[in-house]
Amino acid sequence: MKFILGIDLGATLIKIGLLGKDYEIIEKRRLYTQDFKDRDSLIEVIVEEIKAILQSKKIDTKDVLGIGIGVPGPVDFKRGFVYYFPNIRGFKDTLLGEIFQRKTGIKTYIDNDTNLMGLAESRFGRGKNFKSGVYLTLGTGVGGAVFVEGRIYRGKNFTAGEIGHIPINEKGPLCNCGGKACLERYIGNRYVLAKARKVFKERGLTLEILSEMAKRKDKRAILIWKEVGRKLGIALTGIVNFFNPECIIVGGGLSEVGEVLFSEIRRTIRSRAMAPSVKGLKILKAKLKDAGVIGAALLVSISKIK
Amino acid sequence: MKFILGIDLGATLIKIGLLGKDYEIIEKRRLYTQDFKDRDSLIEVIVEEIKAILQSKKIDTKDVLGIGIGVPGPVDFKRGFVYYFPNIRGFKDTLLGEIFQRKTGIKTYIDNDTNLMGLAESRFGRGKNFKSGVYLTLGTGVGGAVFVEGRIYRGKNFTAGEIGHIPINEKGPLCNCGGKACLERYIGNRYVLAKARKVFKERGLTLEILSEMAKRKDKRAILIWKEVGRKLGIALTGIVNFFNPECIIVGGGLSEVGEVLFSEIRRTIRSRAMAPSVKGLKILKAKLKDAGVIGAALLVSISKIK
Repeated sequence: MKFILGIDLGATLIKIGLLGKDYEIIEKRRLYTQDFKDRDSLIEVIVEEIKAILQSKKIDTKDVLGIGIGVPGPVDFKRGFVYYFPNIRGFKDTLLGEIFQRKTGIKTYIDNDTNLMGLAESRFGRGKNFKSGVYLTLGTGVGGAVFVEGRIYRGKNFTAGEIGHIPINEKGPLCNCGGKACLERYIGNRYVLAKARKVFKERGLTLEILSEMAKRKDKRAILIWKEVGRKLGIALTGIVNFFNPECIIVGGGLSEVGEVLFSEIRRTIRSRAMAPSVKGLKILKAKLKDAGVIGAALLVSISKIK
Repeated sequence: MKFILGIDLGATLIKIGLLGKDYEIIEKRRLYTQDFKDRDSLIEVIVEEIKAILQSKKIDTKDVLGIGIGVPGPVDFKRGFVYYFPNIRGFKDTLLGEIFQRKTGIKTYIDNDTNLMGLAESRFGRGKNFKSGVYLTLGTGVGGAVFVEGRIYRGKNFTAGEIGHIPINEKGPLCNCGGKACLERYIGNRYVLAKARKVFKERGLTLEILSEMAKRKDKRAILIWKEVGRKLGIALTGIVNFFNPECIIVGGGLSEVGEVLFSEIRRTIRSRAMAPSVKGLKILKAKLKDAGVIGAALLVSISKIK
């Protein structure tokens, strides 16, 4: 019996999963990314968790097919090399795959986290019936993945899919990525939260509360979410006109906001994108709860087949 | 001996070419699109020209492999169906392929003009050494084509590639396509010309003159072209981050403006797009003079092989 370790290394949360042969999650552990002061201590704790999981389940490393890690930033997929993480310091130019492999003795594969969530969603989730599409995730960052004929389209340097860094204005605020007026700079979690806290003059406000308020028809909360949907719809209008995808699947924390957000995304795209490109387009909420962990495990299987 | 008819139906100019088996142009005729008052008279004159060319060369229709037509707007490639032309009236919902076939007795294929120019450029021009990339053309409209693994990527409804209709601002002027703040609405020929005529208070000014002025270091002309390059660079920043192409090939009339334009496109992308996505990216001027006509002929060959 073979196992796979799937790790979803997010800017907020790290999920470490042990999966069986049908990608079912046998064990899952969570860590908070912010709890660690630097790269090496973060890596060290993940490695310790991996060892603890295997020990508790009495699994030998030779029975682990591999470790897959989804990371929040652009990577050189072939070399297991991290260019940098826009929302976690200290990972610039890191051969992350090699480090994990050395520390665990298990073959390790890394890819952009959104590519892997999209991969899981396209295999087992909402994307199952579509050949070409776009997956995006709304969280600390706004990530994306591109699918062509059922496969991840990675682009020349494996960095395709950065929907969060499509500029939606000529002029605008500087983004962590070095760009300006990027979508993420307006609708990344922290920016939405900052705006909401200003509107409500409430420092303890969270996005979950803001989402609840909208569901209870609070007008100011609804306006904030509509603004998020509108900005997202504008970036997606560019994608619809440029890429004419079959579907757009939206995942990540903010997708839980629900109809107030989705109806504004749809309304904006319908009113601004070219009619022939919008025809038949599906805009769907992602389905899988642990897409990141499952996608990371899928990466191991895919890479082993090659 | 077999011949192919390649037609480049542009919003300004119509080029009709007779090509031989190596896609060499044997005869070429030009018409001005604006000279015809409606759809039917435009089609009629093109059909007359086709017949005149074949007659003058003593070619029987059975020796013509097919007619390929590149058109300036979104089409349903499979049905030979024109959705509409943003810059020519009267073509909404037209089965254009069928009409030509009936009137000439020759099998006719249609596709978006930029797809075909890109196809020609990717086979015989600047794109020859790249597998994935983006082609765009700067003219009356701003068109685009997407290449993945050496083939045209058409998208779900065959409308992919509409780079001219990527919004570059949240708010902005209405575009012919129904959208708002589209790239084309700022840098399409007519808009650049309108702006230049305002700056120079010269109604007879043309884009050719404006281009010459920039080459002679006229500061105001240079500023106008830099502004075009900057806006184009912002839309392309979105494409580079989303699609991570190997190359961007720029064709069409405005590409002749040369270095003042290209250096600003490159500068904008380098300063705004994500560094890992820009690495190794080539931004090149298209090479082929008759890409539209050659691409239309290639469309016939490709479709016949299938």
